[in-house]
Amino acid sequence: MPETVFAYLEAHRETYLQELTEFLRIPSISALAAHHKDVLAAADWLVERIRRAGFPSVTRSETGGSPVVLARYGEDPHKPTVLIYGHYDVQPVDPLEAWHHPPFSPTVVNDLLYARGASDDKGQLFMQLIAAEAWIQTAGEVPVNFRLLFEGEEEIGSGHLERFIKEHQEDLRGDFAVISDTPMFDHESPAICYGLRGLAALQIQVSGPFQDLHSGVYGGTVANPAHVLAHLIDTLHDDTGRVAVAHFYDGVDELSPSERRTLAALPFDETQWLADLGVERLVGEQDFTPLERTWARPTLEVNGMWSGFIGEGRKTIIPHRADAKITCRLVPHQDPHNVLSAVKAHLEAHCPPGVHLSVDLGEASPATLTPLQHPAVRAAAQAIKQVFGTDPVYIRMGGSIPVVVTLQDVLKTPTILLGFALPNENFHAPNEHFHLANFYRGAKTLAALWAEVSQHG
Amino acid sequence: MPETVFAYLEAHRETYLQELTEFLRIPSISALAAHHKDVLAAADWLVERIRRAGFPSVTRSETGGSPVVLARYGEDPHKPTVLIYGHYDVQPVDPLEAWHHPPFSPTVVNDLLYARGASDDKGQLFMQLIAAEAWIQTAGEVPVNFRLLFEGEEEIGSGHLERFIKEHQEDLRGDFAVISDTPMFDHESPAICYGLRGLAALQIQVSGPFQDLHSGVYGGTVANPAHVLAHLIDTLHDDTGRVAVAHFYDGVDELSPSERRTLAALPFDETQWLADLGVERLVGEQDFTPLERTWARPTLEVNGMWSGFIGEGRKTIIPHRADAKITCRLVPHQDPHNVLSAVKAHLEAHCPPGVHLSVDLGEASPATLTPLQHPAVRAAAQAIKQVFGTDPVYIRMGGSIPVVVTLQDVLKTPTILLGFALPNENFHAPNEHFHLANFYRGAKTLAALWAEVSQHG
Repeated sequence: MPETVFAYLEAHRETYLQELTEFLRIPSISALAAHHKDVLAAADWLVERIRRAGFPSVTRSETGGSPVVLARYGEDPHKPTVLIYGHYDVQPVDPLEAWHHPPFSPTVVNDLLYARGASDDKGQLFMQLIAAEAWIQTAGEVPVNFRLLFEGEEEIGSGHLERFIKEHQEDLRGDFAVISDTPMFDHESPAICYGLRGLAALQIQVSGPFQDLHSGVYGGTVANPAHVLAHLIDTLHDDTGRVAVAHFYDGVDELSPSERRTLAALPFDETQWLADLGVERLVGEQDFTPLERTWARPTLEVNGMWSGFIGEGRKTIIPHRADAKITCRLVPHQDPHNVLSAVKAHLEAHCPPGVHLSVDLGEASPATLTPLQHPAVRAAAQAIKQVFGTDPVYIRMGGSIPVVVTLQDVLKTPTILLGFALPNENFHAPNEHFHLANFYRGAKTLAALWAEVSQHG
Repeated sequence: MPETVFAYLEAHRETYLQELTEFLRIPSISALAAHHKDVLAAADWLVERIRRAGFPSVTRSETGGSPVVLARYGEDPHKPTVLIYGHYDVQPVDPLEAWHHPPFSPTVVNDLLYARGASDDKGQLFMQLIAAEAWIQTAGEVPVNFRLLFEGEEEIGSGHLERFIKEHQEDLRGDFAVISDTPMFDHESPAICYGLRGLAALQIQVSGPFQDLHSGVYGGTVANPAHVLAHLIDTLHDDTGRVAVAHFYDGVDELSPSERRTLAALPFDETQWLADLGVERLVGEQDFTPLERTWARPTLEVNGMWSGFIGEGRKTIIPHRADAKITCRLVPHQDPHNVLSAVKAHLEAHCPPGVHLSVDLGEASPATLTPLQHPAVRAAAQAIKQVFGTDPVYIRMGGSIPVVVTLQDVLKTPTILLGFALPNENFHAPNEHFHLANFYRGAKTLAALWAEVSQHG
């Protein structure tokens, strides 16, 4: 690791803060049409800044939505090629009155940079950019080929990204991807996230009579769709919290003893969790710890259900239909389509007579997992140790990030999530901020990673 | 039965039709404030018409809502006193374009009188009035004392009636009440309805975390209130359709073999019912017929339930709460408050840990039943036979009519429901109508009833 790279980052601390502040001033809220010109301005700002970093090829591509900014540096087939993804759009800011500083007037207080987008994701995207710049501007030899993929629609569902990736496969193919859009485990624990759960969605409708019926005239003779829906939902889990659907767990990747030991060693504070959520106790599969259950075990949750009269007061009816939305979180080696088929078959088998059941199958995305033995994971661990003076913790996350699935499915590129935000930095909420210490440490860690990668590759 | 009474009714057929038409022209829609003056006009029309019928005492009483019209004829303590209830308000008329004739321009087509209120209930109320008038105007001796109670808020819940009845007990007390606000069993089957089910209402809420949670981050560790609500609802019935709540059936009045035979003899057409409702089969307690189940067995129905995200698309959350509205229909000798307590205790006993359950108990009204041996029932049967040439069918109804409970609770007055509408005459719907043949036959039957009552009393 050339000292010149770190020295370059140190020397430009003030400049980088000024530049990041400039970037954060642009209110690039993708959800609001009135801010579309700001989204475009942020893309233009990025293109210009990437060019100054020394990338010979930078393009702004129209997608039908916000532009995608794509950049390349290095074409050496003997070096690893890394794909860096980030997003330059931000969440809306309401309620505005809850902000202590205007969301687009970045303000530093006690080493915390307050602004919408500070940690999610402009600050972390910029951190990636300066780590690459430090290499390009100082080293005679950059150890990797860089591919930058920055989008402007992450906060509204990345609607145009999968198609863009499919159409630009040759520009994007790399040995692995690094995304800095997540937090560390806690203030003391820089984290490498190597796995995300997948998602399988379905919607069910139980329909009975043509219309809502008078419960006095018909009650006792007609199947009530609300009762049937409740019955069906109740059959989906057993009393121990396991999903009671045959074949639901088919193929589930069992946790290895060593991974279980790793997760068990994490400083998970159940008491704090309970207090944060406002519940008295946790539930779920008793043979697994809470972190195992959220990160490495599949689940099935009703996200919404409704039937009949839901207003003020009373309406004595037998509802004519009842509906529910359900999503499953999946773990590696579960086939999302098989899971959906299994749930559908279960529901059909458990539906009593007298009603009609329809099941609509929706999105089905697999889990993603980068093996802990992957060279990029080992390199990231070394880089973290070098900068933070501590070993990273290895985590998964229970959610799903669509771009990671697309990179895995379309480009066959594994991803590690290497973020330096903190869990309480108010992403999507008022008073979003970013610890500047972690911004600089993160940039150094990423710079160190590129040196390590070339040794571990 | 003096022939002069029937003769009087026959002689005034045209007059009565003209008068009823006049009454029906008044758009006394209680639900719409813009029609309040019409509600008042209908009350005034009634007061004037009752006076002309020969009632020496007629009052229009303010209630805070629509006026109540009260009238008395006869004070002989040796005669039976009958309380006649009806309502002069009507339902709204939308969708107006679905009417083949304007709803407040009464039109006769093929002996059917089309107008809003024709059968529910102005036509039947007027039928009651002319039956009394025929006696008063022709007979030297009227066989009963009449008490008329006509309200103008039935279609909006009779909000002021219970208080009015409590405050006017002495004016209203009678040996029994007769209400003509229901249909015959079918075109061939004049009916005496002697029982109604009661009602017990509750609302339940299952609450979990402070707010909706990300199902990826927390799924697998936090009790999902929608799952818990579904479980609770599913425990309320067993697989055979019985309510599975301990003590729910306590005190239930078992049907006698003779009443079961009576109900079994009714021309109930299950195939037609299924077709009308759009369901493939009936469900419920298999030891009872459909009519027994709806008329004489208690039930528990979810009228509405809701939880989480119910809009278009998807939101991957664990909902923070789940709610349901439930009503039970009760039969004689069930205590409504005990039923509510039993359901509440059942829910509390079956609620798993990790959530908070709250149960709000609402309205609790008992069932009403007039014994088939009651003299008024026997008198009504004779009257029907005399006019229709056929025996009546004896029916109950599965719904609840609040005024009947009030009459039973406050005045200790039993009620028979003796209506002459037909089930398909579109009460509450466009093209409401009333068969004029049944209007005249109904008036004669009621006139005959008063003679019979004095013999059976």
